[in-house]
Amino acid sequence: MSQKYATRAEDYSKWYNDLISRADLAEHSDVKGMMVIKPYGYAIWENMRDILDAKFKETGHQNAYFPLFIPKSYLSKEASHVDGFAKECAVVTHYRLKNDPNGGGVIVDPDAKLEEELIVRPTSETIIWNSYKKWIQSYRDLPILINQWANVVRWEMKTRLFLRTSEFLWQEGHTAHATKEEAIRETEQMLDVYAEFAEKYMAMPVIKGHKTESERFAGADDTYCIEAMMQDGKALQAGTSHFLGQNFAKAFEVKFSDAQGKQEYVWATSWGVSTRLMGALIMTHSDDEGLVVPPLLAPIQVVIVPIYRTDEELQLINEAVAKISDELKELKVKVKYDSDDQKRPGWKFAEYEAKGVPVRIAIGPRDLANGVVEIARRDTKEKYAMNIENIGDSVVKLLSEIQENLLKKAQQFRLDNMHEVDTYEEFKTQLEKKSGFYLAHWDGTKETEARIKEETKATIRCIPIDIPSGPGKCMVTGAPSKGRVVFAKAY
Amino acid sequence: MSQKYATRAEDYSKWYNDLISRADLAEHSDVKGMMVIKPYGYAIWENMRDILDAKFKETGHQNAYFPLFIPKSYLSKEASHVDGFAKECAVVTHYRLKNDPNGGGVIVDPDAKLEEELIVRPTSETIIWNSYKKWIQSYRDLPILINQWANVVRWEMKTRLFLRTSEFLWQEGHTAHATKEEAIRETEQMLDVYAEFAEKYMAMPVIKGHKTESERFAGADDTYCIEAMMQDGKALQAGTSHFLGQNFAKAFEVKFSDAQGKQEYVWATSWGVSTRLMGALIMTHSDDEGLVVPPLLAPIQVVIVPIYRTDEELQLINEAVAKISDELKELKVKVKYDSDDQKRPGWKFAEYEAKGVPVRIAIGPRDLANGVVEIARRDTKEKYAMNIENIGDSVVKLLSEIQENLLKKAQQFRLDNMHEVDTYEEFKTQLEKKSGFYLAHWDGTKETEARIKEETKATIRCIPIDIPSGPGKCMVTGAPSKGRVVFAKAY
Repeated sequence: MSQKYATRAEDYSKWYNDLISRADLAEHSDVKGMMVIKPYGYAIWENMRDILDAKFKETGHQNAYFPLFIPKSYLSKEASHVDGFAKECAVVTHYRLKNDPNGGGVIVDPDAKLEEELIVRPTSETIIWNSYKKWIQSYRDLPILINQWANVVRWEMKTRLFLRTSEFLWQEGHTAHATKEEAIRETEQMLDVYAEFAEKYMAMPVIKGHKTESERFAGADDTYCIEAMMQDGKALQAGTSHFLGQNFAKAFEVKFSDAQGKQEYVWATSWGVSTRLMGALIMTHSDDEGLVVPPLLAPIQVVIVPIYRTDEELQLINEAVAKISDELKELKVKVKYDSDDQKRPGWKFAEYEAKGVPVRIAIGPRDLANGVVEIARRDTKEKYAMNIENIGDSVVKLLSEIQENLLKKAQQFRLDNMHEVDTYEEFKTQLEKKSGFYLAHWDGTKETEARIKEETKATIRCIPIDIPSGPGKCMVTGAPSKGRVVFAKAY
Repeated sequence: MSQKYATRAEDYSKWYNDLISRADLAEHSDVKGMMVIKPYGYAIWENMRDILDAKFKETGHQNAYFPLFIPKSYLSKEASHVDGFAKECAVVTHYRLKNDPNGGGVIVDPDAKLEEELIVRPTSETIIWNSYKKWIQSYRDLPILINQWANVVRWEMKTRLFLRTSEFLWQEGHTAHATKEEAIRETEQMLDVYAEFAEKYMAMPVIKGHKTESERFAGADDTYCIEAMMQDGKALQAGTSHFLGQNFAKAFEVKFSDAQGKQEYVWATSWGVSTRLMGALIMTHSDDEGLVVPPLLAPIQVVIVPIYRTDEELQLINEAVAKISDELKELKVKVKYDSDDQKRPGWKFAEYEAKGVPVRIAIGPRDLANGVVEIARRDTKEKYAMNIENIGDSVVKLLSEIQENLLKKAQQFRLDNMHEVDTYEEFKTQLEKKSGFYLAHWDGTKETEARIKEETKATIRCIPIDIPSGPGKCMVTGAPSKGRVVFAKAY
């Protein structure tokens, strides 16, 4: 660990990249824009996935799997959808390679050209609604509540690990309903599931809101989102839930007969979160020493490191650790004992700090003699002695304190960096000085939105749902505004 | 359920397709060769995946994720690998679509041609070993024990749901070791994990063995497999575990320095099972009434159907069912109560029979008065009364009996359809009469193997590990044979 890593203050962007490497979460592959998610990073993602999957099932959804490839013509069926997604995508044009007759290795076989090109799914609305067409005839077939865990590809020229990669992992829910009201309720329910997951498990406070028309999902009537604040004050869209109206039902001619036998178009929603959440997690809690993982998502919640000089000392420690580990495992605490004798304690301390393990326990012979261990909290960096007696309960309590503390800290940070501004001058000056969330009045027009974006690089992150504010006047044009919206620079 | 479905005797192949549709497991998509895995089918696959994933972790493996796309040149690095996999694959040549200036919708943008074509992974050895090259320097970096759950694409002209599709879901383990012995132990360990999973959870007996050289994985020094017998007597390869020697290490120049500082090539394994297991599961147990799912893999283990005429009767039944359900859930039994009043009991019976739910409980007012319910076993079709008192324990016992019975039945079927044959004439006559596994001597040459395949369509499924037989003479050439091998027609 002798390498010099960037601090957040020195170079926030380099700090982020260094951290992913130090914590061994992921790396760039040799395939442009695509990442390798390494075991430790994947283990955190698996924890997120399993928790979300359970929430989806609790709310009545089932998983299914649809094809990776979408015929090019499907994308065109929903007019705004094709504009949003057809631009940068991976196109499969051939289905065979062959040996180069001139000895140049393998080449694409020109005789194996597809009649219609296939697109590697950037999102699955079109392929799924093409199936729903066959599945839905009557109101009895509704609702359809399906989720898919999958990989998707959106060609990106400028990529950043987890935040923007050409391939990413995600889940996409796709539901079909008999009424507009039910579809809107579903859209809002899933937004709540995401918000609760973000706060309760990721310890990341989020603002729920609506996207403006120009920031909407291509093909949606309304896009709801959760927006989180990163430590550099920038916003990160952490999840979206779309009310799709009847757009895809019309594009794919999906009608159902209602209880009175009348034919109606089906109402739709879609909603998703992705491996981008890993980037959000990193930038919400981590510090200059490395990653900080909230206990509820940590692959290792407690690491135990022995401190010894002789084999006799080690043996005594091993015996004590066996008991402590058993006690912790009994309480479902994920504990790891690192007794690797090739590495020094100091090296291990730095390693698990970089990996964000919430609690470190160090045990030496003197501790044992006193019936205690040394606890180090990753979040506050406090160190103190803890009694071995009842250590299981003490650690469980500590983990839950750490989880709470991380959320509180993030809430406080957001509070400190969220301001109301009333004039465009004030907005620009403040934003220049310090990135953050700015609550300001806006006249509701695309023109003003675009102007602000061009002049300040800040966008409207959302029209917030839970931040009530009375009407006012647009900070730019002075025209009437229904309420303040959230402006920020964003990832 | 008035539609006429094919029986196994009438048309085995149509029976299989009908069953997948009746049980609502999957369907063909409009994308050639690619399937949609529907929620009920996916739920069974999820159960398989979760059990296997736990076994992989118990044996020290971690999950990770590698890119979907493989640069064309990587495939060529391992000479036999490219011959095996480069032939039929999806090739990405462009990364952008654009609006047709002539108004023909979206077209491939000719300016967005990739410098090097990308192949959608048919298997990930090459992309993974390209990463391992960066990860491995010293013996301290070994072993690497990684698994990936992913989708893969192998272009298929003739497809069958679950058995052969252009895209399928699978897991692929990729491990790296310091010694040949350790890599072979890993290969064998994972074969054992697969065999145990097949027998214990799928209730599907398998023969463990080695593939002949001509049936080996492209790039392997030795391919181990498990072979199962389907109800039509044909073999299905249910999983493979490959000892890759140093082939990929050499192709990607992956060396490590051993404890003495000497540079050595790394030893490798890979192993996988796929959604093909769904096909194996279907064809091992199901009958003319539909799917039969072993209890340990069933998304619904017990379905309860109320039989009533009046609302008062239904209310009494509802109360009894609430208690029974609680008792069953307490014991982790997956129970569903189908009280849908739009469907008649007879319709429900047929529906859950088609879906292979292991135990059906019907409850009417007279049953309640007698303190019993009516049990119907999916496997034996027996029906009998069961006391409501202690019903939880009785059902748990019954589920475990059903699980055992399915395995025994499948074992007996295999026993009845596996024969030793000594002459080629006998082999051909018997095989003509009845498909099955034929244990016969073979001289070990590719020529004889190819001749038998051409003349009878039977292939050597494996050189079995656990079916001891002394040496003998090849049934075709009379040349010496080390032991009997398993011949069969195969999926």
